[in-house]
Amino acid sequence: MADEPIRVTVWGEGRHEKRDANVLAHYPDGMHATIAAGIAEHAGPAVTVRCTTLDDPEQGLPDSLLADTDVLTWWGHIAHDEVSDDLVDRVQRAVLAGMGLIVLHSGHYSKIFKRLMGTSCALRWRNGDDRELVWTVDPAHPVAAGVPSPIEITNQEMYGEFFDIPAPDELVFVSSFTGGEVFRSGCAWRRGRGRIFYFSPGDQDYPVYHHPDVRRVIANAAVWAAPSATREPTPISYAPTDWFAKP
Amino acid sequence: MADEPIRVTVWGEGRHEKRDANVLAHYPDGMHATIAAGIAEHAGPAVTVRCTTLDDPEQGLPDSLLADTDVLTWWGHIAHDEVSDDLVDRVQRAVLAGMGLIVLHSGHYSKIFKRLMGTSCALRWRNGDDRELVWTVDPAHPVAAGVPSPIEITNQEMYGEFFDIPAPDELVFVSSFTGGEVFRSGCAWRRGRGRIFYFSPGDQDYPVYHHPDVRRVIANAAVWAAPSATREPTPISYAPTDWFAKP
Amino acid sequence: MADEPIRVTVWGEGRHEKRDANVLAHYPDGMHATIAAGIAEHAGPAVTVRCTTLDDPEQGLPDSLLADTDVLTWWGHIAHDEVSDDLVDRVQRAVLAGMGLIVLHSGHYSKIFKRLMGTSCALRWRNGDDRELVWTVDPAHPVAAGVPSPIEITNQEMYGEFFDIPAPDELVFVSSFTGGEVFRSGCAWRRGRGRIFYFSPGDQDYPVYHHPDVRRVIANAAVWAAPSATREPTPISYAPTDWFAKP
Amino acid sequence: MADEPIRVTVWGEGRHEKRDANVLAHYPDGMHATIAAGIAEHAGPAVTVRCTTLDDPEQGLPDSLLADTDVLTWWGHIAHDEVSDDLVDRVQRAVLAGMGLIVLHSGHYSKIFKRLMGTSCALRWRNGDDRELVWTVDPAHPVAAGVPSPIEITNQEMYGEFFDIPAPDELVFVSSFTGGEVFRSGCAWRRGRGRIFYFSPGDQDYPVYHHPDVRRVIANAAVWAAPSATREPTPISYAPTDWFAKP
Repeated sequence: MADEPIRVTVWGEGRHEKRDANVLAHYPDGMHATIAAGIAEHAGPAVTVRCTTLDDPEQGLPDSLLADTDVLTWWGHIAHDEVSDDLVDRVQRAVLAGMGLIVLHSGHYSKIFKRLMGTSCALRWRNGDDRELVWTVDPAHPVAAGVPSPIEITNQEMYGEFFDIPAPDELVFVSSFTGGEVFRSGCAWRRGRGRIFYFSPGDQDYPVYHHPDVRRVIANAAVWAAPSATREPTPISYAPTDWFAKP
Repeated sequence: MADEPIRVTVWGEGRHEKRDANVLAHYPDGMHATIAAGIAEHAGPAVTVRCTTLDDPEQGLPDSLLADTDVLTWWGHIAHDEVSDDLVDRVQRAVLAGMGLIVLHSGHYSKIFKRLMGTSCALRWRNGDDRELVWTVDPAHPVAAGVPSPIEITNQEMYGEFFDIPAPDELVFVSSFTGGEVFRSGCAWRRGRGRIFYFSPGDQDYPVYHHPDVRRVIANAAVWAAPSATREPTPISYAPTDWFAKP
Repeated sequence: MADEPIRVTVWGEGRHEKRDANVLAHYPDGMHATIAAGIAEHAGPAVTVRCTTLDDPEQGLPDSLLADTDVLTWWGHIAHDEVSDDLVDRVQRAVLAGMGLIVLHSGHYSKIFKRLMGTSCALRWRNGDDRELVWTVDPAHPVAAGVPSPIEITNQEMYGEFFDIPAPDELVFVSSFTGGEVFRSGCAWRRGRGRIFYFSPGDQDYPVYHHPDVRRVIANAAVWAAPSATREPTPISYAPTDWFAKP
Repeated sequence: MADEPIRVTVWGEGRHEKRDANVLAHYPDGMHATIAAGIAEHAGPAVTVRCTTLDDPEQGLPDSLLADTDVLTWWGHIAHDEVSDDLVDRVQRAVLAGMGLIVLHSGHYSKIFKRLMGTSCALRWRNGDDRELVWTVDPAHPVAAGVPSPIEITNQEMYGEFFDIPAPDELVFVSSFTGGEVFRSGCAWRRGRGRIFYFSPGDQDYPVYHHPDVRRVIANAAVWAAPSATREPTPISYAPTDWFAKP
């Protein structure tokens, strides 16, 4: 509906790439660059994509950039605690005002995801080089468009239930792993005026963000999460006296 | 809350037992008898349990029995089409008025389940002697009380997504299978004043209803689905003139 | 996402217009023509709109037209029982395969709505010339775009709770009436691959479908309900052997 | 199911009663005492009820009391900011581990409710001495048992939409007000292993907690929110190796 491209900002923690040769081998320009390239590749002219990282000024998200972002993607892992509470406040306000948020993999434990969910967001996990199969349980959902069911990810960390999240407003994907575990791997919520999507594939130890179907899902999610209207903060109070007309 | 025992009626199609030696070997008194015994065993004095089958008078559910039932369980497979539309009408009305309904395994394709869901209720399946693991995704749900996560069912038919149902009001169990498939195997809905639970384990070719955890879940579901009040048909129309007092 | 216009078909019962001078005065070309004009007015080139009625051949919906429809709107009242079960079957299949369906006002009691909901769809009502206020409870929902909260409808029939429907997947509007009653007046569901929206304003005795905000909502709903992919029937069975017996 | 009474703790802010003669006139022993008496009156031997307030040691909720509480009710208004973040952390953990939480009226803006919801929890309001009608939209819900639809509250503050909360898992009550506004006044959520109910009637300026139907709803909610099992913290991580590497 919008004629303007959706302004996507890919936020990356950017730390594994600085210390783990294995991660750097998969992602020489950083995981964020690969995620951004996947979105650009699949969403095409519908989006413009920028990258930013924790070690950039203002932890990568000055107010000016946040105000210029329609959809934010978030990947973090070993530095969740370094993200300032002030940034979490600002991102939360942006989401409630309409900005879309895509949380990826270990971002389940980020401050911003826990803030928006209200739960512990804990899960089971095992780094055991499992095969993950990502099954579509809502085949008409726009986020699932154009990918096979299942998506097969040959090498991946296992994430399993119980995943301590609010029941999703829309459950799109459920994964199984070699060990027999299952996981709600694609979950959508509406919070305030914003849309949130969590997608679990994507451990730093495996080249998951090069997988074409994974890229397609993230691009779909970015388009789906875009606000349909101008961002609007929720007012703190109202004076709706126009409807007050007692006899 | 109720002091009276919950009146559970176990409806069984009862046809496989008459023609398949394998089924009869697992269930010499009929699958329904085993299901009923499991409910009685686990729910104890909280319930009274009766069995009835398709080949009983009035297809097993005369009005008098339906009126005397708090929770109905339904297992059918090869004779769904024989169930009369009149019986489907009467069971639907009872559910909307407050009766609980537990639909088991191949009952997903029963007329009554399709009637209450409004969808095709189609699913993937394969009779390949899989191992099924039933994982709890809502650990505080009363239906999941007292069972391990996962429940392991050594030999079972595979049921897989996409399962064409309305998104459950409460998703309790998700299963995986040897082939890597996943399935929303424990789903709860509220319809009218009634509660509905679908639980997928239980093919006639395997002794699944002898499994203690499966029995426990069905017993839990029967207690959970019991109406909290006297059954009450939804009125067709109202005359709420007591609130009409325009100036 | 689609470049092709959305093909909207407005189905009208078309009977009140033939016998009630009051209705004909409000809707000289039929209620359906006014509904169609409102959709065309607000959705513009995003849609093409056609009308059809119960008294047209094949009750207005031959297979060829149904196959050529992305979104169907449905208004009926005094002739629900005349709609053939075969047509209900065909519309249900089309919705489950991806066609959008917008059910209006007294259409809550149509066969197709009851079929898709699985409940009685009963409600309270009073034809007492109330003022209806339609409040938005999900301000970022595309169906609520561009309308004030509340929409004020000066003269309208009262529809009140309890409305016997499955809990909506998305609740968008809640109305109040002069008598103090409330009603879930804008409700969305996903069923199979299709999207369903129920919008209650619109009694034949009042010129509600000339109200610009009501027209805007229906146009929004038509765009929202359009399938994002080619319509696809749910297969009855599968043979997913490709995922079986992998090492 | 539990044989032990449900241990209910009524937390009151207790400040209005110390400074507003009007509030003290309605609630000479504090609002919390009246709320507690209503729960005890309607839930009877199913509960034991204690009161505690913000000005008690450890803001009324030392760990020992929290550990001895099955269901906590929360009323606050003018001192939300004084509640320590540490207490909010501890109450959140208790809820996620299974404790029930009933949030009343202006408690919508409490730190603990905003923490668990993840949204702003803003709403419209007007202190205009409205009549509130509380309609039941889920008549079989245990929280609505035994109260008329609508409950009529003669004098009450207006709370109106948009109420910025996650879509409730179960919507039980919707209110209308003299001014024509509507409000989702009875909302249930599951978070972690805990159940949360928000019920909006109850401003300090009106004697709402003496209303027998309001008392009945709060007592129902306390029973409904009680955990069905021993409280269990969500583990931070797991080592589910028992399911790994099976053939």
